Amino acid sequence: MSPEAIPGERLARAALTRVLEPGDEHGGRWLRQFGAAGVLALLREPDAGRGRLTGVGDQRLDGYRARAAAAEPERDLAAVTALGGRFVCPGDTEWPTQLDDLGEARPIGLWVRGHPDLRIWSLRSVAVVGARACTSYGAHMAASLGSGLAERGWVVTSGAAFGVDGAAHRGALAAGGATVAVLACGVDVVYPRGHTELIGRIAEQGLVVAELAPGDHPTRSRFVLRNRVIAALTRGTVVVEAEYRSGSLVTARDARRLGRFMMGVPGPVTSGLSAGVHELLRDEGVLVTDAAEVAELIGDIGELAPPRRGPVLPRDLLRPAVARVLEALPARGTAAGPEIARNAGTTPDEALGRLYELHSLGFVEREGDGWRLTPRRSPPATTRRGGT
Amino acid sequence: MSPEAIPGERLARAALTRVLEPGDEHGGRWLRQFGAAGVLALLREPDAGRGRLTGVGDQRLDGYRARAAAAEPERDLAAVTALGGRFVCPGDTEWPTQLDDLGEARPIGLWVRGHPDLRIWSLRSVAVVGARACTSYGAHMAASLGSGLAERGWVVTSGAAFGVDGAAHRGALAAGGATVAVLACGVDVVYPRGHTELIGRIAEQGLVVAELAPGDHPTRSRFVLRNRVIAALTRGTVVVEAEYRSGSLVTARDARRLGRFMMGVPGPVTSGLSAGVHELLRDEGVLVTDAAEVAELIGDIGELAPPRRGPVLPRDLLRPAVARVLEALPARGTAAGPEIARNAGTTPDEALGRLYELHSLGFVEREGDGWRLTPRRSPPATTRRGGT
Repeated sequence: MSPEAIPGERLARAALTRVLEPGDEHGGRWLRQFGAAGVLALLREPDAGRGRLTGVGDQRLDGYRARAAAAEPERDLAAVTALGGRFVCPGDTEWPTQLDDLGEARPIGLWVRGHPDLRIWSLRSVAVVGARACTSYGAHMAASLGSGLAERGWVVTSGAAFGVDGAAHRGALAAGGATVAVLACGVDVVYPRGHTELIGRIAEQGLVVAELAPGDHPTRSRFVLRNRVIAALTRGTVVVEAEYRSGSLVTARDARRLGRFMMGVPGPVTSGLSAGVHELLRDEGVLVTDAAEVAELIGDIGELAPPRRGPVLPRDLLRPAVARVLEALPARGTAAGPEIARNAGTTPDEALGRLYELHSLGFVEREGDGWRLTPRRSPPATTRRGGT
Repeated sequence: MSPEAIPGERLARAALTRVLEPGDEHGGRWLRQFGAAGVLALLREPDAGRGRLTGVGDQRLDGYRARAAAAEPERDLAAVTALGGRFVCPGDTEWPTQLDDLGEARPIGLWVRGHPDLRIWSLRSVAVVGARACTSYGAHMAASLGSGLAERGWVVTSGAAFGVDGAAHRGALAAGGATVAVLACGVDVVYPRGHTELIGRIAEQGLVVAELAPGDHPTRSRFVLRNRVIAALTRGTVVVEAEYRSGSLVTARDARRLGRFMMGVPGPVTSGLSAGVHELLRDEGVLVTDAAEVAELIGDIGELAPPRRGPVLPRDLLRPAVARVLEALPARGTAAGPEIARNAGTTPDEALGRLYELHSLGFVEREGDGWRLTPRRSPPATTRRGGT
């Protein structure tokens, strides 16, 4: 595992999440050239930035300088800690290294609420996104994909919006499964307001993630740029209902550009809300009709995936809290999450988070409603269908 | 153009359409080895066939022998002529040579009712097939593809069944367009009975085609084998609603095996009638949502297609009836079908048949409801999207 980011850089990165807009590739280049502390210093010295922080207009640079002057990362870190959250940045053990595929548009860092380990959960995650104003067909499909994927041990990632996103999160939660919400605002800001309870439940049972600093509000461009994080975090993106030119299609195309799977759920061609999905499917998207098909497709790629049988990590490298949950599983057969939690002396939510981590690492498997140890024997000599 | 089939062979082929079951590859081999007259003679001589007509069991051979003894091709030819029809076989000018792609499963010949030239119409034809018990969504999509393709100058080919087939034919007819019904029974047998009027209209305005002899009735296997003819005649097959393991999927897969386009119209994944289509789309079928997409896809292949601009045949090689219709078009602008028919001194149905032939040969184009001469200038230097 990589070392934790050096303290000054961490703090500067935390500050810069409030200063630079998400996905600003010039900012990404500055970070590479000067380091986070260096960029912050350049923005804070009255004239030093001019001529060195290149690529953006004076007006934007002035905006960044004003924000840099006002940034108080210690206060932000304290605020998020008070919510039970943390700041995760490149170099941290919990940093999801697949985000590095975004190059200079990589997030500066991520604010995270929730117990599970973001890096490990993201290894076995899939995005389910789509229209806010979806039809009941779209909501049904999103919920059924959410629960079906969760039942198969997949983490369901989405944007916590009304419509498809919300239905996907709820489907995963209803199956007692794992879900990650990537917000386009601070992790302490509830948007949309109508999802106050849902986002609260995700923070308890799953993870709420944002690249914007606490208290920051969503804007149109922030929604669009948030989508690249969803695409990069996951192994593939499934679009359930989307009009032409919708943000969900951006997420799916980002996914494809990043080498992830781009999938879509078809619908009646007479529905404008399926038109965007059909466009995607005509453009190399993979048509999927249920969670089993999604899991079969994305479960086959080797690169990001742990082996399908047996752990990728020796047991003694597990963190104590994770090892305790592993010890709580029966040697044979399956056990339900709450029973495992009792045996491990922890809460069901905490146990669930650890179980999904253990699943990502190959130690355990889901079976029906329960969990069991991954059999030790070598994989059967069956030929599996290749991806795409 | 190839010469007409030699008279004895023609008559023997007409007889054999009543004797051999459609698509019997052993029969196809016998035809290659002994010629049609030779096969018929072998089947009619009490023992000569044994040992030479190989590959099928004694029982089937006895059945063929009994049928050969009873066959009266002159009577069949007279019956079909009385209906305004004809028998078309390999070697005839009207034989659609793309059927030769079926190899030894090529039809022995085709019984045809209707005015237009089957070979030329088939050059610009597309199959629209699907479930008999379709939903109103399926019927709507089939009708709208039928009319949209007809409006674009495409001949719509289907199987005259209830449901999708019927809706596709009706859509083409409603647009004043061209349609071909390929039956799994004799061209004088109306099946299903409920489509008496529809099949009658197709025989007036389009073409009714069958490889079975007059009076022959459909069987389960004849339906399945009929599908290969639909697949081979057309440039591509569009499936609109189909359950798993449906006959329409067979047609589409035949089309693909023959190098034609395999297309499908998606629907709600919650509908069992779209499940077969989705399976097809996951298996290299091309998702299409309207007639424009179908036309764009199949209009691009060069092999079977005449050039998109300008005729492939000198004007003076046109048959007089066709040349008269061509002469009836205005030098500039468009004219409606009935107006062209008046100028050519013929009926609207007859004119329509000729106009589609002229379209296939590149002399004319459809524009809205009317027809116009294809501009003489060379094609604009635009890059077109490639097929599949």
